[in-house]
Amino acid sequence: MRAVDIIMNKRAGKALTREEIEFLIGGYVAGSIPDYQVSAWAMAVFFRGMTPLETAALTDLMLHSGEVMDLSDVSGPLVDKHSTGGVGDKTSLILAPLAAALGIRDPMMSGRALGHTGGTLDKLEAIPGYRTSLTKEEFKNILIKDGFAMTGQTKEIVPADRLLYSLRDVTGTVESIPLITASILSKKAAEGAGALVLDVKYGSGAFMKNADDGEKLARSMVDTGKAMGKKIIALLTDMDEPLGNMVGNFLEVEECYNCLDGKIDRLSADLMEVTLELAARMAILGGKAKDTAEARKICEAALASGKPKELFLANIKSQGGDVEKFLSLLGTYRSPHHAEIKAASGGYISRIDAWKIGHAAVGLGVGRNRSDDPVSPTAGLQFLRKSGDPVKKGDMIINVWGKDPASLDEALPRIAEAVEYSPSAPPPRTLILKEVTAI
Amino acid sequence: MRAVDIIMNKRAGKALTREEIEFLIGGYVAGSIPDYQVSAWAMAVFFRGMTPLETAALTDLMLHSGEVMDLSDVSGPLVDKHSTGGVGDKTSLILAPLAAALGIRDPMMSGRALGHTGGTLDKLEAIPGYRTSLTKEEFKNILIKDGFAMTGQTKEIVPADRLLYSLRDVTGTVESIPLITASILSKKAAEGAGALVLDVKYGSGAFMKNADDGEKLARSMVDTGKAMGKKIIALLTDMDEPLGNMVGNFLEVEECYNCLDGKIDRLSADLMEVTLELAARMAILGGKAKDTAEARKICEAALASGKPKELFLANIKSQGGDVEKFLSLLGTYRSPHHAEIKAASGGYISRIDAWKIGHAAVGLGVGRNRSDDPVSPTAGLQFLRKSGDPVKKGDMIINVWGKDPASLDEALPRIAEAVEYSPSAPPPRTLILKEVTAI
Repeated sequence: MRAVDIIMNKRAGKALTREEIEFLIGGYVAGSIPDYQVSAWAMAVFFRGMTPLETAALTDLMLHSGEVMDLSDVSGPLVDKHSTGGVGDKTSLILAPLAAALGIRDPMMSGRALGHTGGTLDKLEAIPGYRTSLTKEEFKNILIKDGFAMTGQTKEIVPADRLLYSLRDVTGTVESIPLITASILSKKAAEGAGALVLDVKYGSGAFMKNADDGEKLARSMVDTGKAMGKKIIALLTDMDEPLGNMVGNFLEVEECYNCLDGKIDRLSADLMEVTLELAARMAILGGKAKDTAEARKICEAALASGKPKELFLANIKSQGGDVEKFLSLLGTYRSPHHAEIKAASGGYISRIDAWKIGHAAVGLGVGRNRSDDPVSPTAGLQFLRKSGDPVKKGDMIINVWGKDPASLDEALPRIAEAVEYSPSAPPPRTLILKEVTAI
Repeated sequence: MRAVDIIMNKRAGKALTREEIEFLIGGYVAGSIPDYQVSAWAMAVFFRGMTPLETAALTDLMLHSGEVMDLSDVSGPLVDKHSTGGVGDKTSLILAPLAAALGIRDPMMSGRALGHTGGTLDKLEAIPGYRTSLTKEEFKNILIKDGFAMTGQTKEIVPADRLLYSLRDVTGTVESIPLITASILSKKAAEGAGALVLDVKYGSGAFMKNADDGEKLARSMVDTGKAMGKKIIALLTDMDEPLGNMVGNFLEVEECYNCLDGKIDRLSADLMEVTLELAARMAILGGKAKDTAEARKICEAALASGKPKELFLANIKSQGGDVEKFLSLLGTYRSPHHAEIKAASGGYISRIDAWKIGHAAVGLGVGRNRSDDPVSPTAGLQFLRKSGDPVKKGDMIINVWGKDPASLDEALPRIAEAVEYSPSAPPPRTLILKEVTAI
């Protein structure tokens, strides 16, 4: 077998065999195949794609390049959720305790903010004392005790993905659906969950800018999951506008806590709709309901019971957080560098561009431009109006907190620019476009 | 400027600017851009192509990565010929002295056999004493004295091509028309010829297997030449059957000498037709004729004058060869390991597959599988029949000489298999399919 023949087979649009993928990518991870052959192959994959069987073989190979969490001694169905990322996308913080309240176990390994999208770990670390670097034993014990645990990915998980991703990042081969699929699924499989709900977001604030590309990714993930014997349901959800009324680290935790506490702001309705639809799929995959209508009902009942809030607070304590301090910070933990965005026009807000808000938020200190930049817990935005709301010129529409005065000055015009107006009410947003399941 | 953005621009099908190409490929040659980015770019070029302006910028950059021959003190028009390679393709050895007889100067830098195609340098070295590694001064002096000189490419010529080609060779990116164009034209431009006739071969024994791909390559070369201000005429010629009646190193030199000496075998007619058509284009580019008909006439007259033969022998002497010994070897310099191929069937020979003959010839010792393999001067094939000829079963059709008995045993069935028969006469071959010139 020669790497160049494998590259040329892919270049010609042929499906590679498991052995060919093993030779090329296994060899790359082992150091016998050079990066310049892998980058040429990745570019050929960008143009030619991969079948679900090929993608499954690649995923499986990557998965077994490192440690695979053994959660066989955790009782109860193991179901995880993964989002392709968005602005104000905080569903995990509500979903994990909600699913746990249903008796589902969610072993959640999350990432950090990079680019214009936020990261669950950064949000959790805004809770005083909260630790996101758990040992394997801690992770498993907390998962058993609270029903969910939240940690970062260890270096032992899927080293092949780190290697391949860093090569793709500099060779223009990130935006390949099968390569994205293998990257996500290998990590999720390594984390030990048996089933997975995917939140594939599309729109300006998402990785996939349009619904078609989003659906292709969802289809690829579900079909590859099937080829691997893993149950996956994907929802295609709107990310053209930030989700909920908060964008920030502590701010988003606070919005989630309020939702769990039954104090659901009118402007958090979109967040709760997406969250409950995702939760319903977790309930189905966990065997807790037989259809979406039943699943949705038990999720709503669980939320109303207050148990998810208790589990959320229990988890804070389990992961080293200070619950009393956390509760005392609610509504007040804000950067002193504050400004307001007022409506530039009357009529209706027709759109709040998630991409522009996401980029402005990075500047405020919510996210980072380089992986070693620090983030601010108290920077962010609070929306007092969202699309569809009527406004009068000069109405307060957004609270903005920056990590320092300069960041605020820089972000304000970009935030103002993200808000679009129309003289008449815009059509309502479709939050959940489609469900994609294995055929 | 970032290499990844340049790769993504090409991936998206955009034409790169001269500055982008300079940044990427200039950086690669200088060592600041890593090979894994260049191989990803090359694969994107394979799928997306390049415009003539892009290809010209790449060619120019590669050309100036090394030494460019200064032939400004050579009087007379400088016109070279380049062939994309074939089996029994020996036109250079007739063309160079023929063009020289017309007052054209041909500074010919050639390559060696690799794969199933022969190499001019290997053929010339079958002449006792002939040197193909000339110094620059020797090359120029012989060019002035004899009207042509034949040497190998020095390491100082287009180092970027060696670097890029060796990367393409292992990353499945050889078969890209703009990259092939830049590779050929940069070397030809570096050799100092002002104008160029291209023999773009298509068919089983050629790099381009069909006429369409051949025409695309011819078009790319001519248009890129135009964008560089270099006059190029391309002929699309048939390489489905070996050219002439000999395949081998000394054997091909002998066939050429016989043609120059007026002893043109009936089975060398295809060789002479292609050679005269190419010579006519050299005459036009050298300003010696205003149209093809006139050019063809002066080429035929020059050949008949015997002057090209004199120049051929003069060049042997100039390049260290032993003319008397060469002449004494004619008709006799053959390997002792000889066999005959007889017609397996009666009727007509419908085809002699150039690809199969080329590969069999490599085994006989004509060519090489690795760049450091030695070649045999006396191995090869002589055709006594070619396609279109009637045969009776058992007629002698090919003489075969191998470097040793084992090579002969191995090659014979492959050679026999290359000969195809039909009960009725096949349609005549079209040797010259098309002329491609700048629009």
